[in-house]
Amino acid sequence: MRIVLIGAGNLATNLGRALKEAGENIIQVYSRTEESASALAARLDCPYTCSLETVSLEAELYIVSVKDSVLSDVLVSLYTPERADALFVHTAGSMPLSVFDRAGIGRCGVFYPMQTFSKLRPVDFVHLPVFVESKRQDDLPLLRSLAVELSADVYEMPSEKRRYLHLAAVFACNFANHCYARAGQILQEQGIPFDVMLPLIDETAAKVHGMSPREAQTGPAVRYDRNVMERHLELLNENTDAAEEYELLSRGIHALRHSGDTD
Amino acid sequence: MRIVLIGAGNLATNLGRALKEAGENIIQVYSRTEESASALAARLDCPYTCSLETVSLEAELYIVSVKDSVLSDVLVSLYTPERADALFVHTAGSMPLSVFDRAGIGRCGVFYPMQTFSKLRPVDFVHLPVFVESKRQDDLPLLRSLAVELSADVYEMPSEKRRYLHLAAVFACNFANHCYARAGQILQEQGIPFDVMLPLIDETAAKVHGMSPREAQTGPAVRYDRNVMERHLELLNENTDAAEEYELLSRGIHALRHSGDTD
Repeated sequence: MRIVLIGAGNLATNLGRALKEAGENIIQVYSRTEESASALAARLDCPYTCSLETVSLEAELYIVSVKDSVLSDVLVSLYTPERADALFVHTAGSMPLSVFDRAGIGRCGVFYPMQTFSKLRPVDFVHLPVFVESKRQDDLPLLRSLAVELSADVYEMPSEKRRYLHLAAVFACNFANHCYARAGQILQEQGIPFDVMLPLIDETAAKVHGMSPREAQTGPAVRYDRNVMERHLELLNENTDAAEEYELLSRGIHALRHSGDTD
Repeated sequence: MRIVLIGAGNLATNLGRALKEAGENIIQVYSRTEESASALAARLDCPYTCSLETVSLEAELYIVSVKDSVLSDVLVSLYTPERADALFVHTAGSMPLSVFDRAGIGRCGVFYPMQTFSKLRPVDFVHLPVFVESKRQDDLPLLRSLAVELSADVYEMPSEKRRYLHLAAVFACNFANHCYARAGQILQEQGIPFDVMLPLIDETAAKVHGMSPREAQTGPAVRYDRNVMERHLELLNENTDAAEEYELLSRGIHALRHSGDTD
């Protein structure tokens, strides 16, 4: 399939690499900045452009992977009569299918690989869940088959549900990673290398494969050991952001432990 | 070495198992509750007691692994003249060596395996960092050699520094796990299985082996994408605890990104 990638950020870079490895024909890369466009084009061995006006008309599929805040405008610029037969997808977990409406795009869908991507770290797609959705039912098999080329875990999911998925991913990934970052900050101030945390971080992640996070919880907050918690807060007396997080998350752990939810 | 385990909780259960596998001679287990004492004793094939008064006098090493809040009292009960020659250690990351002072224990130390332990999940000790400390310098080789039997990563660390380590561990483990739990709560309400999060959770953990958590950060908060963040908060309008965490952690991510700390 002839594909144009609109965007050359973390997700587009990893998705482009995976599509090329799967044998797809990426005919062009667009990015607003020449640096990103040329870097990804070099990796994918294809031409690039930094102007939406010179994006190729030849693609069967346009994968639009740009910041959520500019997505709608990019679609409006991109959708010209010459492209009426092409299929357009975006890759944003939090954006509904209706974002295509303003541009009047008929054949459209969502192709959301749920992962944390960084340009310099190639991600293995084999067990990466990909969530697909399309406006027209007959475009779904195409998106499904493209996703299946990359991953064994492909799901159809409507926008309404996907936005909760994306929200959950922010907690499980971005916020968990922020907790790592706070640990790093505390260790750095003591001259202790971050690497001593890695076995603990790995086990914390591995543990929830076999039990629910609520069952897996340990530490002073779940025991509500006030002595330990107060000593910890004293250590954070010059880091008010971290102290506020410590208090709120400890309360959250305790509340979740005693809530009526089932595991 | 003849060892008595005082305590039969998550840590004692895993440590006891690892010591036995390393060929150490665990001669008795004590726990306040018969259920815990008998379960661990059965696993370690040794006798147990539920009374501190009948704890064996024959041990060379007493490993005291009880709740921080009762540790000092347990030490006072345990330290009788017949045990003046034995070595006593506790396993609590947050407790200083000085906790032994009230009981007047001369030969004492700390043996802190930094990990999240649950009774039913056996943990591999090989790459689990163990932090040791002793009051008398000549007891350190014994603690070191015991730790080395279990783990390749043994460090000497004074109490003053270890408490920061323990605080960092609460962030990297307990608070990160709480973020998983929130994700689980959100997914459960939508009928989406938690397992779809596992590749993301694993990659988030794996990523910080190669880059700092600050470099690894992705998502709406680090981009400060207000549109996405506001839509997420709308989804949480009936879960005020989660909404408060969302706001605070997003601000924290943004602040850490733009702080003067080096990665």
